[in-house]
Amino acid sequence: MNKIAVIGSGSWGTALALVLADNNHSVFLWGRRADQAAEINTEHTNARYLPGIMLPHEIKATTSLKKAVDGAEVIVLVTPTKALREVLHEMKGHLEKPAVFVHASKGIEPGTYKRISEIIEEEIPDSLRTAVAVLSGPSHAEEVSLRQPTTVTVSCEDIKRAEQVQDLFINQNFRVYTNPDVIGVELGGALKNIIALGAGMSDGLGYGDNAKAALITRGLAEIARLGTSMGANPLTFAGLTGIGDLIVTCTSVHSRNWRAGNMLGKGIALEEVLSQMGMVVEGVRTTKAAYELARSVDVEMPITNVLYEVLFNGKEPKQAVDELMKRSRTHEVEDLSSLRA
Amino acid sequence: MNKIAVIGSGSWGTALALVLADNNHSVFLWGRRADQAAEINTEHTNARYLPGIMLPHEIKATTSLKKAVDGAEVIVLVTPTKALREVLHEMKGHLEKPAVFVHASKGIEPGTYKRISEIIEEEIPDSLRTAVAVLSGPSHAEEVSLRQPTTVTVSCEDIKRAEQVQDLFINQNFRVYTNPDVIGVELGGALKNIIALGAGMSDGLGYGDNAKAALITRGLAEIARLGTSMGANPLTFAGLTGIGDLIVTCTSVHSRNWRAGNMLGKGIALEEVLSQMGMVVEGVRTTKAAYELARSVDVEMPITNVLYEVLFNGKEPKQAVDELMKRSRTHEVEDLSSLRA
Repeated sequence: MNKIAVIGSGSWGTALALVLADNNHSVFLWGRRADQAAEINTEHTNARYLPGIMLPHEIKATTSLKKAVDGAEVIVLVTPTKALREVLHEMKGHLEKPAVFVHASKGIEPGTYKRISEIIEEEIPDSLRTAVAVLSGPSHAEEVSLRQPTTVTVSCEDIKRAEQVQDLFINQNFRVYTNPDVIGVELGGALKNIIALGAGMSDGLGYGDNAKAALITRGLAEIARLGTSMGANPLTFAGLTGIGDLIVTCTSVHSRNWRAGNMLGKGIALEEVLSQMGMVVEGVRTTKAAYELARSVDVEMPITNVLYEVLFNGKEPKQAVDELMKRSRTHEVEDLSSLRA
Repeated sequence: MNKIAVIGSGSWGTALALVLADNNHSVFLWGRRADQAAEINTEHTNARYLPGIMLPHEIKATTSLKKAVDGAEVIVLVTPTKALREVLHEMKGHLEKPAVFVHASKGIEPGTYKRISEIIEEEIPDSLRTAVAVLSGPSHAEEVSLRQPTTVTVSCEDIKRAEQVQDLFINQNFRVYTNPDVIGVELGGALKNIIALGAGMSDGLGYGDNAKAALITRGLAEIARLGTSMGANPLTFAGLTGIGDLIVTCTSVHSRNWRAGNMLGKGIALEEVLSQMGMVVEGVRTTKAAYELARSVDVEMPITNVLYEVLFNGKEPKQAVDELMKRSRTHEVEDLSSLRA
């Protein structure tokens, strides 16, 4: 039995805490809200984020970062990208021995274009971390908390550490694969939210499955193009954290990025969409970061470009999708050549 | 204006005839049933296969193969794989000059394991064909007939011929890409129906999006593994006729292979499923062909194997899907290495 701190008590953090508790680990779940922590500790529910789910009694919720991380061998970070540096900075003062950091956040930091693992390495000194790993894959929290079959990938440069993290999470319903390509796993998870916004927008405009499949396919190609230019293994984009996560995010009403795109497609303005969602929509910030990043490294990302125009420059969603669909005649293999290993 | 014969008046043949008529070609649509031909010619509908759609008056339906192909510069074949040799054999006697053959069928011939283009090359002598091309991609006929945005790929070893076919079909709503990898395009289209059966089965069993995304991702890997062993370009499986078609077939209630798998997952027996469908379910025959083919070339196809057991050896669908999900710990990149170009 390991002491594991899960930092972030939204739907995904709570679902991962449930998996770890199912595996008989001692789990401390940290969140800022005292009423939520009290609900988890006394009612064993987190009704706002995982309605209808009874949580294992082994999950101890706390609003104290110190209490959560004190003596933890493993720290699982599931905060929005935006809040991460602040949380890490605060946490650092409470760490007494090195821990394994596993994150399950999906984003790129605006301005710096840093991946989450890079942010962790910057904020937590070498002496306080034995490894940084990422857990990602096609995994709606709702289904994980219902113990429905789910597969994810754990990635760490040190594959032995990845296997240790795999051992913590793996069980009959939650299948964990490993992959040494941290860059590819992180970028796949982050960038897929851009395509999910686009897929939702296509659906919101009333276009069909044919249009959406085209968008997802070409979205994968442009994600892989940017990813390989950043040092990722192109094969990773064909795996669970690439195409797998892309499918689940683009074809499911559970996905908040898809839902945000869907509202945009129906003509609702961005501010109104974000206020209606009431949850973080990582894809919006990621679109901006990827747009700027792609320009700086000179990588062609047509879907990201038109989404950027819709989100930040007032372009009409219909015009944007029509432009994407109506490009000139192309040889498909040229579009895909970035996937070559 | 070219004279084009479309052979096969099911939903996909009729939708392709509509695209060609929209592009001002002279289109002859062949089918066996006189009442259907009369309906198309007088009512301009094909209510059984494309309910609610008004067809362009330029489509002339006929039950005479001779009349359909006489003087046709291009012959588009959209028959079930099972009926293809017989139709080609009959057609051959009516051909007076060489034509471009384009097929839009998705299957592998049981026993011979031949692709559709190979069957055409066997049945139609060199002197009567200038090229054989395949048209494939994520394209529900219903959406194409509603002029919703759709993308497909045309593949021919001779890329100039592929571009000629592209020119015939391309318009504002129907976007056509080219790809010289005939083997990959044909195998992607055929083999994806196996995974669609599996995805439908997972849904029918009540599993969620996470399980289905895992199945589709690993399905793509095994399709690519068999395809590259047969000489396909692995990149093709990441394109419209690979992952694109796979997504649309696995996530849409339009797909008859998904629907058949869904019924199987709900416990309905295969004979009952096939009789309820009333349409050809190519995936069933393709599973058998791929199962035998994979064994003969020693390629690992776990999803195809368990589906074969369900379809032909009475294995319980739940046991089959559970076995797939609960394999031992694996490194993801090993699973995907067949995708390496």
